[in-house]
Amino acid sequence: MPFVDLNSDLGESFGAYKIGCDDQVIPIITSANVACGFHASDPVVMDTTLQIARKAGIQVGAHPGFPDLMGFGRRNMVITPAEAKAYVLYQVGALSAFCKANGLTLQHVKPHGAFYNTAAKDYALAKGICEGIAAFDDSLIVMGLSGSELINAANALGLKSASEVFADRAYEDDGTLVNRKKPGAMIEDEDLAVARVVRMVKEHKVTTITGKDIDLKADSICVHGDGPKALAFSALIRKKLTEEGVTLRPLKDMF
Amino acid sequence: MPFVDLNSDLGESFGAYKIGCDDQVIPIITSANVACGFHASDPVVMDTTLQIARKAGIQVGAHPGFPDLMGFGRRNMVITPAEAKAYVLYQVGALSAFCKANGLTLQHVKPHGAFYNTAAKDYALAKGICEGIAAFDDSLIVMGLSGSELINAANALGLKSASEVFADRAYEDDGTLVNRKKPGAMIEDEDLAVARVVRMVKEHKVTTITGKDIDLKADSICVHGDGPKALAFSALIRKKLTEEGVTLRPLKDMF
Amino acid sequence: MPFVDLNSDLGESFGAYKIGCDDQVIPIITSANVACGFHASDPVVMDTTLQIARKAGIQVGAHPGFPDLMGFGRRNMVITPAEAKAYVLYQVGALSAFCKANGLTLQHVKPHGAFYNTAAKDYALAKGICEGIAAFDDSLIVMGLSGSELINAANALGLKSASEVFADRAYEDDGTLVNRKKPGAMIEDEDLAVARVVRMVKEHKVTTITGKDIDLKADSICVHGDGPKALAFSALIRKKLTEEGVTLRPLKDMF
Amino acid sequence: MPFVDLNSDLGESFGAYKIGCDDQVIPIITSANVACGFHASDPVVMDTTLQIARKAGIQVGAHPGFPDLMGFGRRNMVITPAEAKAYVLYQVGALSAFCKANGLTLQHVKPHGAFYNTAAKDYALAKGICEGIAAFDDSLIVMGLSGSELINAANALGLKSASEVFADRAYEDDGTLVNRKKPGAMIEDEDLAVARVVRMVKEHKVTTITGKDIDLKADSICVHGDGPKALAFSALIRKKLTEEGVTLRPLKDMF
Repeated sequence: MPFVDLNSDLGESFGAYKIGCDDQVIPIITSANVACGFHASDPVVMDTTLQIARKAGIQVGAHPGFPDLMGFGRRNMVITPAEAKAYVLYQVGALSAFCKANGLTLQHVKPHGAFYNTAAKDYALAKGICEGIAAFDDSLIVMGLSGSELINAANALGLKSASEVFADRAYEDDGTLVNRKKPGAMIEDEDLAVARVVRMVKEHKVTTITGKDIDLKADSICVHGDGPKALAFSALIRKKLTEEGVTLRPLKDMF
Repeated sequence: MPFVDLNSDLGESFGAYKIGCDDQVIPIITSANVACGFHASDPVVMDTTLQIARKAGIQVGAHPGFPDLMGFGRRNMVITPAEAKAYVLYQVGALSAFCKANGLTLQHVKPHGAFYNTAAKDYALAKGICEGIAAFDDSLIVMGLSGSELINAANALGLKSASEVFADRAYEDDGTLVNRKKPGAMIEDEDLAVARVVRMVKEHKVTTITGKDIDLKADSICVHGDGPKALAFSALIRKKLTEEGVTLRPLKDMF
Repeated sequence: MPFVDLNSDLGESFGAYKIGCDDQVIPIITSANVACGFHASDPVVMDTTLQIARKAGIQVGAHPGFPDLMGFGRRNMVITPAEAKAYVLYQVGALSAFCKANGLTLQHVKPHGAFYNTAAKDYALAKGICEGIAAFDDSLIVMGLSGSELINAANALGLKSASEVFADRAYEDDGTLVNRKKPGAMIEDEDLAVARVVRMVKEHKVTTITGKDIDLKADSICVHGDGPKALAFSALIRKKLTEEGVTLRPLKDMF
Repeated sequence: MPFVDLNSDLGESFGAYKIGCDDQVIPIITSANVACGFHASDPVVMDTTLQIARKAGIQVGAHPGFPDLMGFGRRNMVITPAEAKAYVLYQVGALSAFCKANGLTLQHVKPHGAFYNTAAKDYALAKGICEGIAAFDDSLIVMGLSGSELINAANALGLKSASEVFADRAYEDDGTLVNRKKPGAMIEDEDLAVARVVRMVKEHKVTTITGKDIDLKADSICVHGDGPKALAFSALIRKKLTEEGVTLRPLKDMF
């Protein structure tokens, strides 16, 4: 019986600033990527977020980002692999303390935003990230873009990895995401997007932007909770997957 | 046979900014208080500092501070006990990740600067700090000013505590430090300062600014490494203690 | 004919974080206090905020705060008068650049949050703030709590000052605000609050918490735009003042 | 009679962190690039730095950088031209306030570190920077790498520009600096380096890494003050230029 994980970013508020609809996205997902204070969040928000996650019974992972709160971690920064390793250790360690305090076990690590995107293409950076994860706890699952250098680096270091796919993005023939600036990069028809997700999960295949079918690993689907429209689409994905006989389970159940 | 711990702040550099003479103070001390990125340090500095500490064989503790890099954590900030707890969890967790990565075990937690000073007098804040420590690892030793509310809070929560004394500071009759703004607050005669330290360690007594003898717990002596003069005085304290038959041992050996 | 200024905090968003209902509060007010990047805002938000203010034709002032984004500038920090002066110069200068770029003239400076509250009681800090303002441009209006040390310091330095009153707060016999922790500190009856404001503006009198009438200078009324309820109350104040024959004019028209 | 400006970065300390030998480099230079609080410095340091510059009688310029204190502004960040414009306005405005307070007039703006390097090659970013400068004060001089896109953008916007050359760097045939990773990128022979500088200033020519002579504009020479060796080399450049009949004058004297 096919199964998949549904993940979303959580706990991205900061001080007096609230962002996201955490309460509404939690019932939809099985795993949460929790911000760690570099691109978003602060210690109080992290504590509150883990309390909420524990009550909801979902799994949590660390969501380390670039040290760029002003840019929400979405702007690329040219850092060295050694810096990447240290930034991951710092953020994963910090979140891990709140896991301890709340009786939770950290399930996975997924880099955030530009850190994620660059690690998908830059093996040296991806390796730095995975070395940080391995140095902290080599039983953690590394979540990355399906077919990315981050997944390659995790595998090379003997770490567990989870391949993530996106419902609303088109794919190139080589399995990478079509650049957002290219026409056709976004799958705007929701029914089509959901049908693609179901197929990725059940058949491990996706039709690329050129019309070709390629193989694709789909361990987790990224959904969003930052607005009514995103929430409705996320709920639709969950509903359709269930109707199609796909079981929703957190990443840890796959290993 | 009397023994005592010698502690100093370590790893306070930040990015391109170097501060302190870590290499020179390490041979003098038995325990290091390692900055955690709020008032000083960054992830790369933390990693480097723990590598150095491991090679030197000294014990390490977390040195959490206020989130005030511009003020080096020396300016009081009015935060709630819940914020204090979360800030401690975050910083101790982050440092702990570098301990894991470097094969070290965290020995103690000592709040830094204004966080330390306020926690010495404000029981609610001290309790928040100790709750953060206990939630992370209740075998950690809490280091605080001898006779302070931080020590009281640690004891009330069932945590191990270590009482710290200062060689160059005068004491009031109630065991608190004489305010730096008052005349006589600093012991400027180095020989007198060292003699006082030896007596604190061996007899657990100190002569206050009014001339009275009071009892005082002295588990650790704070020394400094931020310049040639401070280093020379720290080395003198170590030398005299040894000559007086005091063994220098890290805090963990006391429990 | 009586007149008064209505002021509100504006431009407190930061990066991806949105806060406040700037578009809705702007039609209600005559002067805006614009955050300068220490406790809130960033360069892009500052530019956008001044563009909006210019289109709306309202006056703008600088709203410098403590360097504490995580606490939104609401937590007291113990800084020196020299630091206060430098922090004011920095923030007022930065905002002033966006005024220049947008063809606006800076009207006033009002410290934010804990910086405002501490400057109301601490003359040395208030003097530091006013020295920063005077060093930048001695034609700027200093906005402070009516009867506060900030107003006293502004007057002592020969700066123009504007006394601010609050619609929803009770006053002590000495003209200070009743501490929020005391019963009766907040005026919860909206009609009573508005009637008090009208009287403060027209008669320069307010009934204190003990029932006594005292004199009070009321150059500007602080209103809020951080939610539907606050916006409705702000609009009500504007409506009633107008009905009572009070003209709403920006601070600069008073000098 | 040939003349040239000698510039150096100044005021890069931050809080308790000291960096650079400002007192020693000031007698060597005619213009200082003063950090503005993003990649280095803080309001108190900026005030102190301008006091020192005023006493020494040297000209000052703003040295805006990326918002990356941890990386000292040396790591590239992918920001938009609109962000670049806003970041320049913010930093130049902030520094300008301290100029006002100290009776100084801002002479120039030179982007720092990775901001400078990216602006040398990326016209869109360079244009954003120049738009920020022009919006603040179109009489300011833009200092950039000789032959760079920053100089091109300044000229296109009708701003004054000053072309900077480096004593210790080799040049490609197209006038760009040889990448530091390539062999021969650094001119390590001090006498040769100084001879090249003298020729750049007097003949506006330099021999490239391929042995070809190219034309080069040399309005200012960048020297360093971050250590005894750098200081000695900077002093040597000054001495030789003077011996060769070159007058040292600040940028403003060229317009």
